[in-house]
Amino acid sequence: MSEYLNALGERAKKASIILGTLSEEEKNKAIFQIAEDLKIFANEIITSNKFDVDNLIAGGKGLNMIDRLTLNEKRIEEMAEGAKQVTQLKDPVGEVVESFTRPNGLVISKVRVPLGVVGIIYESRPNVTVDAAMLCLKAGNAVILRGGSEAINSNKVLVNVIAKALEKSGLPKDSVQLIEQTDREIATQFMRLNKYVDVLIPRGGAGLIKAILENATIPVIETGTGNCHVYVDNEADLNIANDIVINAKTQRPSVCNAMETLLVDAEIAEEYLPVIAGKLMEKNVEIRGCNRTSEILGSSGIVLKNADETDWETEYNDLILAVKVISGVEEAIEHINKYGTRHSECIVSENKEKINIFQKKVDAACVYANASTRFTDGFEFGYGAEIGISNQKLHARGPMGLKELTTIKYIISGTGQIRG
Amino acid sequence: MSEYLNALGERAKKASIILGTLSEEEKNKAIFQIAEDLKIFANEIITSNKFDVDNLIAGGKGLNMIDRLTLNEKRIEEMAEGAKQVTQLKDPVGEVVESFTRPNGLVISKVRVPLGVVGIIYESRPNVTVDAAMLCLKAGNAVILRGGSEAINSNKVLVNVIAKALEKSGLPKDSVQLIEQTDREIATQFMRLNKYVDVLIPRGGAGLIKAILENATIPVIETGTGNCHVYVDNEADLNIANDIVINAKTQRPSVCNAMETLLVDAEIAEEYLPVIAGKLMEKNVEIRGCNRTSEILGSSGIVLKNADETDWETEYNDLILAVKVISGVEEAIEHINKYGTRHSECIVSENKEKINIFQKKVDAACVYANASTRFTDGFEFGYGAEIGISNQKLHARGPMGLKELTTIKYIISGTGQIRG
Repeated sequence: MSEYLNALGERAKKASIILGTLSEEEKNKAIFQIAEDLKIFANEIITSNKFDVDNLIAGGKGLNMIDRLTLNEKRIEEMAEGAKQVTQLKDPVGEVVESFTRPNGLVISKVRVPLGVVGIIYESRPNVTVDAAMLCLKAGNAVILRGGSEAINSNKVLVNVIAKALEKSGLPKDSVQLIEQTDREIATQFMRLNKYVDVLIPRGGAGLIKAILENATIPVIETGTGNCHVYVDNEADLNIANDIVINAKTQRPSVCNAMETLLVDAEIAEEYLPVIAGKLMEKNVEIRGCNRTSEILGSSGIVLKNADETDWETEYNDLILAVKVISGVEEAIEHINKYGTRHSECIVSENKEKINIFQKKVDAACVYANASTRFTDGFEFGYGAEIGISNQKLHARGPMGLKELTTIKYIISGTGQIRG
Repeated sequence: MSEYLNALGERAKKASIILGTLSEEEKNKAIFQIAEDLKIFANEIITSNKFDVDNLIAGGKGLNMIDRLTLNEKRIEEMAEGAKQVTQLKDPVGEVVESFTRPNGLVISKVRVPLGVVGIIYESRPNVTVDAAMLCLKAGNAVILRGGSEAINSNKVLVNVIAKALEKSGLPKDSVQLIEQTDREIATQFMRLNKYVDVLIPRGGAGLIKAILENATIPVIETGTGNCHVYVDNEADLNIANDIVINAKTQRPSVCNAMETLLVDAEIAEEYLPVIAGKLMEKNVEIRGCNRTSEILGSSGIVLKNADETDWETEYNDLILAVKVISGVEEAIEHINKYGTRHSECIVSENKEKINIFQKKVDAACVYANASTRFTDGFEFGYGAEIGISNQKLHARGPMGLKELTTIKYIISGTGQIRG
């Protein structure tokens, strides 16, 4: 293990022990200071950010990437505002989840405590640096950040501002640290720093998640990949279906809770597919259909690319939609459980029994009836924050807020009890 | 990925979807049938077990191992009794953990559901086959078992009896499956069967846990390793300290919640160490001391092996105890957070403030004041069952019962809501 990482980990661990003993007021005071200092040092931040942006431009990257990386006064203002909002969230630490007395007199309390040291591995956008760090801090965790190399100068200055504000507020400056080495080898080693890091949360695309699952020995909360489906039942209200299909596919196609495959019941396919295809094409959506879909739409003069196995598995994150005609709710469930990524799934139907079967049998974090999959989001759920959307089953499932950045600890008080 | 494992995984996944829809009564009925059939087929079980036992004897293994592996009528009776007790435990599935309505009318319910497919990797004792399978089943999970090669004949017949009883009760027989190939390569592949397995729970020694952390890509609940400490403060009631130290070290030294290192406050070391050393030696405990400990006990004529860095890190699981003199509660906390395995830790003190600091700052699943670490146990906590003791922080911490074999799912009901 790299000396550099070991030292960083040890400092984070020490900071985390102190953070775990702080009151909500102490943490809020520090977060306020950080928000203030971000605004005060806006010029320094913008100057460092310009190095990153210039590198990207010199590398001939697209406007989209450049825009995502760029910090200006307005964006720094927004980061500071976001940090202040975190102070409004209720601190979950210290909550007594359960407490009971055993026949032998032992008092056992299950108390909510911080996770300890959280590792965040993420890509490009420097606002994640501040967002993630503030949420971890509010929940009493030390955080080690590993951002993308293209944002290294921005991240360095942001973490530097944060660390100084922490010190000013009397908190350990090592509560928020950045891995300043940007090579891959160091990232791989970081994923194995079990001695000091309690959990790893990746924020990024499928490639990043896969690399982490392959290499990490630290427990990971898998986030992000969303191959989401909408199933339109033969007993659907087709107006509702139209709204949901268009919203779930086109309102923001690049995100994980957007729909990627539409499943249509065979009984209504002939009636419904031409209607919805027209609406989708108006929104510039490319449709890739199963044989039956191509047949039906073909007779309306619409020529499609045929969908194959790969399409059922793909999270396009784009204005592309796979469409399949299936026979009833059970076949829809089977398709979803085979190809889905356990994220967000939807049935459109007026039949309560079918809704019940679908919601029971579909294996996913969020199972919707008659509402868009786009609602899977910490803010839309009213959690006031989001550190990511988990699509694994351990620890947290679906949108993760502050509470998901904590664990529990048993505090047991005795008077000399021993086991017989 | 091996065809064999893929097929096994696919069957388990299918079974899990059905299991997730069953009522508590249906699951209990099947578990009762299994308990009955274990007794009915006791002779077949004993005959197959004898192959394993004979192999072990032929391999020249020790009596301890042979005893652990051996099944007789009494032990089968106990397994059946254990299964019946599982039917008495409350089914956690279906509990509505939270439910709320959003301003847009979406009704969001957080509902407790089975994990899905649970993988258990374990060593030697064939009773784990039945215990683990029954707990998984009651919580609505399909389970894939991978036992040790030395118990393969016993495990085969046990799983065969279980599968037939499941079929009789109308449940999918693939709810409980055994990996019948016993080579290491298949175990390593099993740890990477993410497509079908939702969580891996190892039950075994440090070597097994390490191999799983190294190789698994499936989320793991780390269990078992316990390098536990008792800290005797200068304000301790020394009678209580005596009881706890002797109990935590000697009542069952081979288990994970036994004490491995005793920390004694410097202020009472001269008075206390000779007393407790005498009592420990009466119980045949070998003491390995820090320099100060050796010095103090040396002047009472007790010659010790010196403890070094390795001793602080070691889970002896034996009648050996490392002893260190330290200066006060903060140094005790530092030692524990450096060398402990986040399992069970204890302070003996009458000073409430020190107890509070210790319980807040020590980073472990169970932090005791004035009680033996030996209480960290699902039954002692009143959970009525135990699938293992987690010493990681994600998902579950400390003794894990039925609830820890479940996860949650968001069920969202709308009337056509889309995101603006």
